[in-house]
Amino acid sequence: MKTKVTPLTTDFYEPTMAYGYRKSRKLEAPASFDYFFRECPFGGEFAIFAGLADLIDFVRDFKFSDEDVEYLRTGPLVDCDSEFFEWLREVNFSSLKIYAIPEGSAVFPKVPPVRVDGPLVIAQLLETYLLSLLNFPSLVTTNAARYRLAAGNDMVLLEFGLRRAQDGMRASHYAWIGGFDGTSNVQAAKDLGISPRGTMAHSFVSSFSDFADLRTRMLRVKNGEEKDFLSSVLNWRERLGYRGTNEGELAAFVGYAQAFPQALLALVDTYDTLRSGVPNFICVALALREFGYAARGIRIDSGDLAYLSREAKRMFGEADAKAQIVFLTRLVIGVSNDINEKILWSLREQEHAITLMGIGTAIATCDPQPSFGGVYKLVSVAGKSKIKLSNDAGKVTIPGRKDAYRLIGEDGKAILDLMVEAGAPAPRVGERVLARHPFKETKRAYVTPASVMPLYELVWDEGRAVKLPSRNEVRERVKAQLALMREDHLRRVNPTPYKISVSNELYRYMHDLWQEEAPIAELR
Amino acid sequence: MKTKVTPLTTDFYEPTMAYGYRKSRKLEAPASFDYFFRECPFGGEFAIFAGLADLIDFVRDFKFSDEDVEYLRTGPLVDCDSEFFEWLREVNFSSLKIYAIPEGSAVFPKVPPVRVDGPLVIAQLLETYLLSLLNFPSLVTTNAARYRLAAGNDMVLLEFGLRRAQDGMRASHYAWIGGFDGTSNVQAAKDLGISPRGTMAHSFVSSFSDFADLRTRMLRVKNGEEKDFLSSVLNWRERLGYRGTNEGELAAFVGYAQAFPQALLALVDTYDTLRSGVPNFICVALALREFGYAARGIRIDSGDLAYLSREAKRMFGEADAKAQIVFLTRLVIGVSNDINEKILWSLREQEHAITLMGIGTAIATCDPQPSFGGVYKLVSVAGKSKIKLSNDAGKVTIPGRKDAYRLIGEDGKAILDLMVEAGAPAPRVGERVLARHPFKETKRAYVTPASVMPLYELVWDEGRAVKLPSRNEVRERVKAQLALMREDHLRRVNPTPYKISVSNELYRYMHDLWQEEAPIAELR
Repeated sequence: MKTKVTPLTTDFYEPTMAYGYRKSRKLEAPASFDYFFRECPFGGEFAIFAGLADLIDFVRDFKFSDEDVEYLRTGPLVDCDSEFFEWLREVNFSSLKIYAIPEGSAVFPKVPPVRVDGPLVIAQLLETYLLSLLNFPSLVTTNAARYRLAAGNDMVLLEFGLRRAQDGMRASHYAWIGGFDGTSNVQAAKDLGISPRGTMAHSFVSSFSDFADLRTRMLRVKNGEEKDFLSSVLNWRERLGYRGTNEGELAAFVGYAQAFPQALLALVDTYDTLRSGVPNFICVALALREFGYAARGIRIDSGDLAYLSREAKRMFGEADAKAQIVFLTRLVIGVSNDINEKILWSLREQEHAITLMGIGTAIATCDPQPSFGGVYKLVSVAGKSKIKLSNDAGKVTIPGRKDAYRLIGEDGKAILDLMVEAGAPAPRVGERVLARHPFKETKRAYVTPASVMPLYELVWDEGRAVKLPSRNEVRERVKAQLALMREDHLRRVNPTPYKISVSNELYRYMHDLWQEEAPIAELR
Repeated sequence: MKTKVTPLTTDFYEPTMAYGYRKSRKLEAPASFDYFFRECPFGGEFAIFAGLADLIDFVRDFKFSDEDVEYLRTGPLVDCDSEFFEWLREVNFSSLKIYAIPEGSAVFPKVPPVRVDGPLVIAQLLETYLLSLLNFPSLVTTNAARYRLAAGNDMVLLEFGLRRAQDGMRASHYAWIGGFDGTSNVQAAKDLGISPRGTMAHSFVSSFSDFADLRTRMLRVKNGEEKDFLSSVLNWRERLGYRGTNEGELAAFVGYAQAFPQALLALVDTYDTLRSGVPNFICVALALREFGYAARGIRIDSGDLAYLSREAKRMFGEADAKAQIVFLTRLVIGVSNDINEKILWSLREQEHAITLMGIGTAIATCDPQPSFGGVYKLVSVAGKSKIKLSNDAGKVTIPGRKDAYRLIGEDGKAILDLMVEAGAPAPRVGERVLARHPFKETKRAYVTPASVMPLYELVWDEGRAVKLPSRNEVRERVKAQLALMREDHLRRVNPTPYKISVSNELYRYMHDLWQEEAPIAELR
């Protein structure tokens, strides 16, 4: 998708470091940076990697405008040498090679989804752009995939979060990539090439007070002539014995049906779901049917959703029986009241009749975890591997340029990811390989893979984008990758951590480096 | 700020309702909508209203492009009459009047920050744009104000969240509005007219292995000639007796100081904060001082921030003493490791020497509450007040067009907000007025205000924007409004709810309307 990231949408330390590198270092050394994360979001044991196409689009188009450079030259970098601004005017990312795990793949802590190789100063400059273009898409896509796992494959999942989203465009886009069926966001639907979804708000319903608010009683019969639609609705109300329903609400459903006779999804909870909304909908739906049209169903936006959906379905059944048809019971029963992943799982355990869910705030903002902790760290410069030590053990990096492989077992499920030094031989099918936990000496295992997936593809080759799949292919990859994982890695409660590992050679190398770099405390 | 909201960045139900209104209703009735929220974010008892200038900018520029209309006509609204698309081509918001509480004001649940008056179909069409333009700005601004309250006025607060933000531009902009001092986001700083902040990442530090990586040993003395800077640094290291510090890190600080001799804020935790980073910084800062420059200070990005800041300050003091100066102890001690509001409060209770905080993810994404629950509800149409009933009592609205006043006590602090029917007489200074809880019959009080603030201003008058303050004025208003509140409303733990109320007349009116509209259950 098109993003609004400009060349100045970066942390100030990127241009200051660029100046610092150019002024102080002996040469523009070749470097490698890893993009990786330390913990999976949402308490899970997997993430879905997304945003790569946005990144490559940005990298391809990157250029500081004259205005950008003038701003830096006369503003925050006013003390810098003029040759730096000549350099800024020309700088681009054509000297980089970007390797990535395919977008839509399941990814795991410490196995970098992206490795960037290139001149230190250029690869560094990419940092903030890369992080801001990959982190949120990976978060939303992971979230959406979790919702799909929770809802099952038969539930229609729609994203309705634009009004409370922080970034509604990316939220809608990546919710669809992660497994949602649609969105209410018209611009996003247009961009994705899908139909936007939605029908009416409470205000539409409550704006009608009675039938006098209607422009006409009439509706054209499908492929026929105009007839008195309101009378047909009122006949059904009489016949079904519904009393005390809100007349304004009924007028609103009639009005909407007159405008969209093929697309009535009635919001039924403005006054009282079971006493007013559902009966009013049933009358209009049966009248529409007499006129040759099919209503879509109802949406419930408050109250006990499982209970109300069951009762609505029961009322549909009663009305079908009285009308001697099988029609209403096949319509959509949609719900949309602050649904989140936890509620989805809880609904699974209850009896309900819900067939469609509109999910808003929780998918669009990724509440309860609104950020993805992806970081971008230097792992090699001028041929030397670099390790970031830290007072926090969790922040230590795996040094050096690395390749990575996913080893698949005989059951077709992923066993573990294995990182090796870049250029080291790939693990081979049927051959035993020693896989070690990167930090815990005692954790290691031999693996004999039934198949081996090399994880990295070259996606940006010094100025040329390669191997970028379509949005649909990315969306399909999410499904295929989830199918590749054992269920216990994906489950919501206490999921089994997926093993990520390093080769014995890489293990030894990184621990030697740690010994070398870390200062030793002097206790007295 | 310029936002990326397009006319199609809306929920699909807005154009479908527009068509529904135009097809089915007798006339385009005058209507009023309220924008309000039901609960304050972050467990607090106040919010700061923001985003109004963005909304007015959007309203002023609004127009569907020919491409937008063609997309709707040939796509999702293909069954609609052609005259609707003629209407869409011309539709704009010039028939609306928008009343708002000034941007930057403290606002409270159920007292609408915005009221929109105008033709039903037009006022409805504004809904999603308004919500998506006001909700997130109000959330971030409120969050930033809470951080400022927690940090106190002397702490420098910088927003560093771009890399993990969902919408980094709005996050940076409204963090500043809410009370932050600056941001690392260059584009946002440019737009705000402030200096972007930041110096170096761990990768800069770790990219240097030793002094051989430096381009030169030299630095120009301020207003003088080049001298051997590295020797000066090493002399200080010798003199202060620092051993075992990481040489690559020292080289990086030297290199950065050579590029920015006036702006060294050294990141000191790449290898070991107290054994390597702080001693290395001290040597470079003292050498810079000999060359006529002042370093800025240090940033600590991991570990026990309070402890490390105290130790760094102690080491600064020791070095100052040995150098017989008072210099290092006055420099910045900055921290930046996943700081959130809770940690800010906790740091207040510890002894620490921190003078600057870089706050990232938590301010930019508004973790732990990434959404603001603002809603947009119809309250009046064709002269009739509308109430939205609901199975959830908390979702019931206060009906009708309303004015609102903030009543101030003799101590200069706000007592409560009072809503009255639009056009009803304003409460008067020194005159007793009955203020009632909108929903609880037993809660009421007489208030004699020492001063009265009318809350609404007309900000969009049928095509003309009026009374829009500058960004700086909005930022100053946030401070003034926080000063208007009693401290117990603002405190973090168990804040006292600020009273919001309705006049006796409005109370009676709304409860009569409820009785009229709500269906009565038939129990059998």
